[in-house]
Amino acid sequence: MKDVLPGLDVVDDPDVLESLSHDDAEWAPYGTPLAAVRPRSTEDVRRVVAACAERRIPIIPRGAGTGLSGGANAVDGAMVVDLSRMNRIVAIDAENMTATVQPGVINDDLKRAVAEHGLWYPPDPASAPWSTIGGNVSTNAGGLCCLKYGVTRDYVLGMEAVVGGPAGGYGTVVRLGRQTTKGVSGYDLAGLFTGSEGTFGVITEITVRLRPARREAPRTVVGAFDSLVAAGRAVAGITRAGLLPAALELLDRTCLRAVEQWKHLGISADAEALLLAQLDTPGRAGDDEAAAVAAVFGAAGALWAEQSTDEVEADALFAARRLAYPALERLGPVLTEDVCVPRSRVPEMLLLIEEIAARHGATIATIAHAGDGNLHPLILAPAGDEAAKRAAQGAFEEMLTAAIGMGGTVTGEHGVGLLKRDGMRQELSPAVQAMQVAVKRTLDPLNLFNPGKVIG
Amino acid sequence: MKDVLPGLDVVDDPDVLESLSHDDAEWAPYGTPLAAVRPRSTEDVRRVVAACAERRIPIIPRGAGTGLSGGANAVDGAMVVDLSRMNRIVAIDAENMTATVQPGVINDDLKRAVAEHGLWYPPDPASAPWSTIGGNVSTNAGGLCCLKYGVTRDYVLGMEAVVGGPAGGYGTVVRLGRQTTKGVSGYDLAGLFTGSEGTFGVITEITVRLRPARREAPRTVVGAFDSLVAAGRAVAGITRAGLLPAALELLDRTCLRAVEQWKHLGISADAEALLLAQLDTPGRAGDDEAAAVAAVFGAAGALWAEQSTDEVEADALFAARRLAYPALERLGPVLTEDVCVPRSRVPEMLLLIEEIAARHGATIATIAHAGDGNLHPLILAPAGDEAAKRAAQGAFEEMLTAAIGMGGTVTGEHGVGLLKRDGMRQELSPAVQAMQVAVKRTLDPLNLFNPGKVIG
Repeated sequence: MKDVLPGLDVVDDPDVLESLSHDDAEWAPYGTPLAAVRPRSTEDVRRVVAACAERRIPIIPRGAGTGLSGGANAVDGAMVVDLSRMNRIVAIDAENMTATVQPGVINDDLKRAVAEHGLWYPPDPASAPWSTIGGNVSTNAGGLCCLKYGVTRDYVLGMEAVVGGPAGGYGTVVRLGRQTTKGVSGYDLAGLFTGSEGTFGVITEITVRLRPARREAPRTVVGAFDSLVAAGRAVAGITRAGLLPAALELLDRTCLRAVEQWKHLGISADAEALLLAQLDTPGRAGDDEAAAVAAVFGAAGALWAEQSTDEVEADALFAARRLAYPALERLGPVLTEDVCVPRSRVPEMLLLIEEIAARHGATIATIAHAGDGNLHPLILAPAGDEAAKRAAQGAFEEMLTAAIGMGGTVTGEHGVGLLKRDGMRQELSPAVQAMQVAVKRTLDPLNLFNPGKVIG
Repeated sequence: MKDVLPGLDVVDDPDVLESLSHDDAEWAPYGTPLAAVRPRSTEDVRRVVAACAERRIPIIPRGAGTGLSGGANAVDGAMVVDLSRMNRIVAIDAENMTATVQPGVINDDLKRAVAEHGLWYPPDPASAPWSTIGGNVSTNAGGLCCLKYGVTRDYVLGMEAVVGGPAGGYGTVVRLGRQTTKGVSGYDLAGLFTGSEGTFGVITEITVRLRPARREAPRTVVGAFDSLVAAGRAVAGITRAGLLPAALELLDRTCLRAVEQWKHLGISADAEALLLAQLDTPGRAGDDEAAAVAAVFGAAGALWAEQSTDEVEADALFAARRLAYPALERLGPVLTEDVCVPRSRVPEMLLLIEEIAARHGATIATIAHAGDGNLHPLILAPAGDEAAKRAAQGAFEEMLTAAIGMGGTVTGEHGVGLLKRDGMRQELSPAVQAMQVAVKRTLDPLNLFNPGKVIG
């Protein structure tokens, strides 16, 4: 493809191509792409899309590849569009509390840049130090502070994308959404593109809304529990008490131990589960809320529950939460569940997860955005152990079914990609699936944008 | 249609039909429907949609008819589907902070019902005492607290709708979205339906997320200004100071006077413009924020600025804001603008509005969700005064163009309906319009759901 795209950074080295051919999802299939390209501008992307469309070459957009569902996995003969070089913060508009960025900007880099203006970009996936805004938008990433502050979609005002089909053919550049706080001019296509996993086009610029920076460090309350289910009861109790923490995270002993062995943060895993709550209401009211959370933990049977008065300790605990996934990955292949159930059913779902794992003989470690009802049981299988792999996959599918049965969803924030397609088919009615397919066919009639993802 | 829909409440009385044939938009055209029907259940709606589709009868869903863009206006020969009898609160799930309602539930009724559970439904259009959740969802209604708490879309988790086309033919009942806090299983069709003005189907049930009730009454800060532009400067100053009020509303002297003459709330209109800020951070931090807002008002040249210490007075001021539109409507036809510009350009837009009105010889009164950059200049024209009507319409179109020129949108929250179709065509590129048309044709191939709205 180098001759077709002169001046562009086209990659055909097989080793590099291999690393660009998949995301971080375990056992999700991927093919051998024709080439990869690293555009630096919207015009580069436009040329790539037009050239690929002319040759009917599938287009696989990707950011940092931290996805956990196979959403960025290549198909044979595809062109991978690696957007990591489009990593410029185009504008920070402090007066209007917005930022406009290229898709390859790392989440934490955006956070740091807007903080210099006294602003805050809340969406906070655990992958924030590595994942890109483009990837976050494409998967509608969640994270740690969704309970109070929402998900990526709640911050996307508008975007630029290179699309095809009805817009005027493949390689058309469009601006969707708006720059203003509110706006209802036409259908919400920016919202539709958010979470569409690159199946409608390639996002080349994004405008997000920001919030004023928090004026004081949030309080952290830690509770230790002798069972996952007791911790789950505490989660349900938080809502019942009318409390809205900025984050409410759960980690089990396996996760804590894996992080500690790797990073030596000084966290002792003396319980089956820890709950970490973050309260960011300022002043005395925040103190009161922290005390109320500790009381709920206590009433739910916590071994101990206290407000962390040491900011270093509190930071270490949240760092442990962020590092849980890579820490476990060091130990071997990890199949990551992403079910989300109504908050009140978290205890029941945690119990079921343990039962399902035991029945399949699978080893699990659980981290959870517990306050959102979004659970990440991580199913571990030693490399090369085929029986363990089969057990993991069996447990994985059964947990999806269990979550649907509780009025939940198969994916809270990781996306459908490849791994949750069967689950999605269970979750959505045939009528809704038909609507989804119809919309995809309308916006991408040649099925060139990330084919096979989401709707399969 | 009575024979076709036995057992349903079919209306063919011409006077009643006339009142059900349009919303509250001035000078938006509407036709003569064949009949109207008042379903009481999803099954009723399903029967109506199937029967109408078989006969190629257009279907016009409506709630309370408080819309201001003509989005609920009938076309000749249509079936109006009046959803006001489907007004049941199906469930309030306090443990999961959600409510499920039929579309005809009045916004304030939902607020009151969830308050009994210590919960809060934030979306707060000025029409909240009259407008329905179904209408709010269909227009993605905004309101007074969007700056801090977002718009209707930010609260819609899922919905049931009767649709047509690819779902399996007209009269298919689908569930879109989810019941959980987070979820990315498939394309965000619930988001796409939100704000689509009934052009994709008839919404029959909605699940919204709730927040814990606020523990104390918000503080109100009032500032009086000798010009709209000075008030606009104060609005820009609020963001610059890193403040995030729950509401930041502007009323000009004409609005205040009209309300006072009608309701005698005891508000003296001694200034050209009032700004009303509501701060709901609890405790001392809230007091500090209120003081900071008053200081910004002062620095922007307020005649006076103070925290209202009298809750009755504060309530009266916000009541005046809510009543501004009906108070002006009493005086004659009102054409309502709904432009939204970047917050920093509010002073400039207010100046332009005055210039445009003067140039066209139009009389305007201005209310604004100033903190959102969402301005509602109300253009007044005495009934029967054709010259005034033409001046109003000329000013209306010119303000749309001016807002687009500032990076704004022609409609912040009222919807495109009929009145903003030309404006939308100016605002969106032909490519984006083509995408919108393609999506509509896909989901409603017979063009039966509210034809002519949004995309025209």
